[in-house]
Amino acid sequence: MINDFITIHTADGDYKVCIGEFENISFEKKYSKVLVVTSHNVAGFYLAFLKNKISHQQVFECIVDDREENKDFTTIQQILDCAFTNKLDRKSLMIALGGGVISDMVGFASGIYQRGIDFINIPTTLLAQVDASVGGKTGINTHFGKNLIGIFHQPKKVYVNPLFLKTLKQREFFAGIAEILKIAICFDRAFFDFLFEKNLNNLDVLSEAIKKSIKLKADIVEQDEREDGIRMGLNYGHTFAHVIELETSYKKFLHGEAVAIGMQMANSLALKLGLLSPEEVEKIEFLLEKYCLLLQYKICDIKGFYNKFFIDKKTCYDTLRFILPNGIGKMKIVDNVEKEKLLEVLGVYA
Amino acid sequence: MINDFITIHTADGDYKVCIGEFENISFEKKYSKVLVVTSHNVAGFYLAFLKNKISHQQVFECIVDDREENKDFTTIQQILDCAFTNKLDRKSLMIALGGGVISDMVGFASGIYQRGIDFINIPTTLLAQVDASVGGKTGINTHFGKNLIGIFHQPKKVYVNPLFLKTLKQREFFAGIAEILKIAICFDRAFFDFLFEKNLNNLDVLSEAIKKSIKLKADIVEQDEREDGIRMGLNYGHTFAHVIELETSYKKFLHGEAVAIGMQMANSLALKLGLLSPEEVEKIEFLLEKYCLLLQYKICDIKGFYNKFFIDKKTCYDTLRFILPNGIGKMKIVDNVEKEKLLEVLGVYA
Repeated sequence: MINDFITIHTADGDYKVCIGEFENISFEKKYSKVLVVTSHNVAGFYLAFLKNKISHQQVFECIVDDREENKDFTTIQQILDCAFTNKLDRKSLMIALGGGVISDMVGFASGIYQRGIDFINIPTTLLAQVDASVGGKTGINTHFGKNLIGIFHQPKKVYVNPLFLKTLKQREFFAGIAEILKIAICFDRAFFDFLFEKNLNNLDVLSEAIKKSIKLKADIVEQDEREDGIRMGLNYGHTFAHVIELETSYKKFLHGEAVAIGMQMANSLALKLGLLSPEEVEKIEFLLEKYCLLLQYKICDIKGFYNKFFIDKKTCYDTLRFILPNGIGKMKIVDNVEKEKLLEVLGVYA
Repeated sequence: MINDFITIHTADGDYKVCIGEFENISFEKKYSKVLVVTSHNVAGFYLAFLKNKISHQQVFECIVDDREENKDFTTIQQILDCAFTNKLDRKSLMIALGGGVISDMVGFASGIYQRGIDFINIPTTLLAQVDASVGGKTGINTHFGKNLIGIFHQPKKVYVNPLFLKTLKQREFFAGIAEILKIAICFDRAFFDFLFEKNLNNLDVLSEAIKKSIKLKADIVEQDEREDGIRMGLNYGHTFAHVIELETSYKKFLHGEAVAIGMQMANSLALKLGLLSPEEVEKIEFLLEKYCLLLQYKICDIKGFYNKFFIDKKTCYDTLRFILPNGIGKMKIVDNVEKEKLLEVLGVYA
């Protein structure tokens, strides 16, 4: 397995994403206290393991519910209360140990605790390793939609250990692969071909793919930290996925699964607009199928589904915007898709 | 009355504080929608007046309770819900119209809404005009203490209209003067002398004093945006004040009143440490008296009061830190004040 790191450059300074098995959690500065935030499930597997690798006198822990439907102000308050109770100050550190829900919430909580303290991210799911490691996006859901409340807050360091994925449920592992496919399809034809030929169940292949995904995302985010241009490519499939998640109350599908369905829908639209050929759509479907991601979704109310697009924060409220592949390895931002065309695409899923 | 502006330089860009009567609210960029957040009381006086000055098609309003004890997540959620309901997007603007509680909350809410949108601040109390216009501090209270949750989020513009103060309650007006005195005592002897000689009930004197206070604060904050050094001078009186507010559940005193009492306590400590002479203490008390700020506070439990210092986020948790005048016009950061000395000072108020 590889043992490497990628340096991420941001407006708020640089940080490293370390990939591979890590020996110790190293701190670049002196922290007064350390609070590890994790979930029941992850704590069972890795909390003791992690605490062993932290050489600090005062390490506290905070166990929260990391289900998507609990990614809200109540859980944020729980993390903050835990920080107050243990008297963390402005020179303290939070560590996120868990999946994307944990890193999003710890990033947000640490960013608003006493107007911002440092945090380190240790993602334990594939999705979080490839997606939440880079970008500085943190936040919570509201009943108006996903991730609508939050801030940009960069971690001080990220540790990505692919060995953590051994304890991941098969379904979650596959859901993470959706994000790897997404980034390959929109940005890198050679990477797509690599994925087409190799098998991500192999640890070495997986490590390479994680590293490549992080590197690609880092390059994109660096070019466009505040998401005005190219970074929007990372939202391929997401406009559809957010509506699917909203309609199923974040319960039926894992985020990556919803994205996989959203990618299929986006591909149908791309096909209709002449941006993808039938063969390209098929190649993508082959890969989705390979990792059990060719999932079905039934739209009960097409107009209702359509209207929900307008609550997505990535859509301007007057115009609809879609991120679509433009051939495999490139993407295109498409504004003002005709309502008729969209309803036709959605109709296929009705 | 003056009609002037001060440019504030921050790491996130520059903005202007316009002082005087304003003709129109001008936007430097095109906003999709505008949400004015204010309180019942201020709305009655100035909401229609303000809306007249905004030339924009889509102006919405959100009326919240602006009492200090409601400066919490519940009210933030109310503002955010109002923004969602009116479908504000990332290119929308929030305007804070009100006192410090309103500007703190709108600064915070706009900073976390869809990971940050712009806001303009229109402070209507003296305290907010001199204190909350500059510095980018936003936030809410928790039951652990004041302003313990928040972010740094700079406004795009601030409009300070001293005429708004005509409708301010006398008590609130005086409380605002406490912050003017604070800044003069810690940073500018000539300004202190000006205040000693002139009367702030005169509109021209008041406008000058507001402008001078903002200018002084701006210079300090520019030197020290993240509050590691000189900016701590702005916390003169505050370590005591926060405990007083905590003990009285934010109900008995206005913030400025608590600061005025805190300044008296800080002065007693400064006297004991030889940083202020008895004459200087007297001069400060003369000014406090002039604006009804020589208030009494009875400490019921000295040790309890002392222990509450350690929950203040400005105190490192292991050591106690006080900001004290070092003669009039200068300040000193004093760490490791002996517990005995402090208890003696507190004893005077028992």
